[in-house]
This record gives sequence, structure tokens and C-alpha cells, in this order.
Amino acid sequence: MFDPASLRYDANGLIPAIAQEADTGEVLMMAWMNAASIEKTLASGMVTYWSRSRQEFWEKGATSGHRQRLVEMRIDCDSDCLLLQVEQTGPACHTGRRSCFYTAVRDGEEVELTKPMV
Amino acid sequence: MFDPASLRYDANGLIPAIAQEADTGEVLMMAWMNAASIEKTLASGMVTYWSRSRQEFWEKGATSGHRQRLVEMRIDCDSDCLLLQVEQTGPACHTGRRSCFYTAVRDGEEVELTKPMV
Repeated sequence: MFDPASLRYDANGLIPAIAQEADTGEVLMMAWMNAASIEKTLASGMVTYWSRSRQEFWEKGATSGHRQRLVEMRIDCDSDCLLLQVEQTGPACHTGRRSCFYTAVRDGEEVELTKPMV
Repeated sequence: MFDPASLRYDANGLIPAIAQEADTGEVLMMAWMNAASIEKTLASGMVTYWSRSRQEFWEKGATSGHRQRLVEMRIDCDSDCLLLQVEQTGPACHTGRRSCFYTAVRDGEEVELTKPMV
């Protein structure tokens, strides 16, 4: 039986969670979860992070509709990082881009890889 | 011009870095970098993390040979997380598995997805 308490959290009770589009393998974003947000995510099937800035649950897409349906939660070898395979509705990034990782470093310069989709 | 000092580091001067196999999209691991390890990585083309447990540079695969050649570094919208597209030689995980994320949570149970490749 999986118990969220078995994971290793940082001093603030948080664990980093990487969201990856299940179909394409695209890495969408990284955010933080606590044990309660993991329980909510597993129970509802919709990804819920913990907002460090607002200090509250952050049900992804609850207001924007840009939700993440959980396909599978994975745990790393040290139990201190999560990989969330998800189905993302629309953009994952608050800038309106599919992925938050839209800036590349090429030959020492920052390059914008994608434009907002909405 | 990209300047590692422009990134947002945590209280310990660290930023999380996700390593993803460039060809397949497989997420291999997550580890931490500081500004100096980012400079080393960009200069050498071989991924160098910062080991929190040993408090020293961790040139991935320097002893094991399981190196990560950097294909491209990407930065997220908040400048507080890195995505490293890499070419991984052999396993990325210290357990001998290709990826550190070899445990899935399915129907409330932990499931081992892969066996060590070496």
C-alpha cells in the first residue's frame, strides 16, 4: 500500500513534482506538493499542487480550465521527487504556452522556443 | 547573453534540474545545480550537478562512466527550474536503472516498472 508519508519532504514539508505529458513525453512544468496534495491528487485523479506563494492548495486549472488529469504518479529512487504523467488540457504555463520550459540557452544566448498558444 | 546569476536559486543557492533523454523524452532524474555547476556544464558540455550530501561538484558519470552529454539547457517561466536535454550513457540511476523514476503508484500500490540494466 502506498503511503504519502513514506516520501521524503524538504524542511517545508514539500516535494518537487515534474509534470510530463503522458502521450508525447513533453515536460510541461515543475511545481511542489505536500502529503495532503498528493492524497487529493490520487483520490480525485486531477493534479493538485501546493502553492508556496499563496500557501494553499493549487488545483491545477480549477479557475482556468487548464487541468491536468493524472495518468500515473511515479516516485524516484530516493523518494524525494515525483514524476506525474498527465493529460494536460490547453497550456500548462501561466504565460499561455504548452510548457513552462520555452526558453533555451543556445551558444550563450536565450532563445524563445514557443509562443503562447492562447 | 545568458547569465547563470539571472536564475532564481533557493536559500542554499540551488536550483532543481530535470534531466530528460533528448531523443526519447524519457525523464531520467532530478538533481540540483548551483551557478558554478551551471557554468561548468555549459563550458564542458558534460552535466555537472551540485551534490547536496557531499557539498561538492558532482560531474555525472565521472567515476562510473554513466555520463550525461548536454544537448540543450532550458529554463522555465519563473527562472527557478532547469530542464536539461541530454544524451545519457548507460543508466542514469545509481541503482543501475535507466531512469530514477522506476516506481509507479497503481491502484494504491507501488509497482516496480524496470529492473537494473547493469
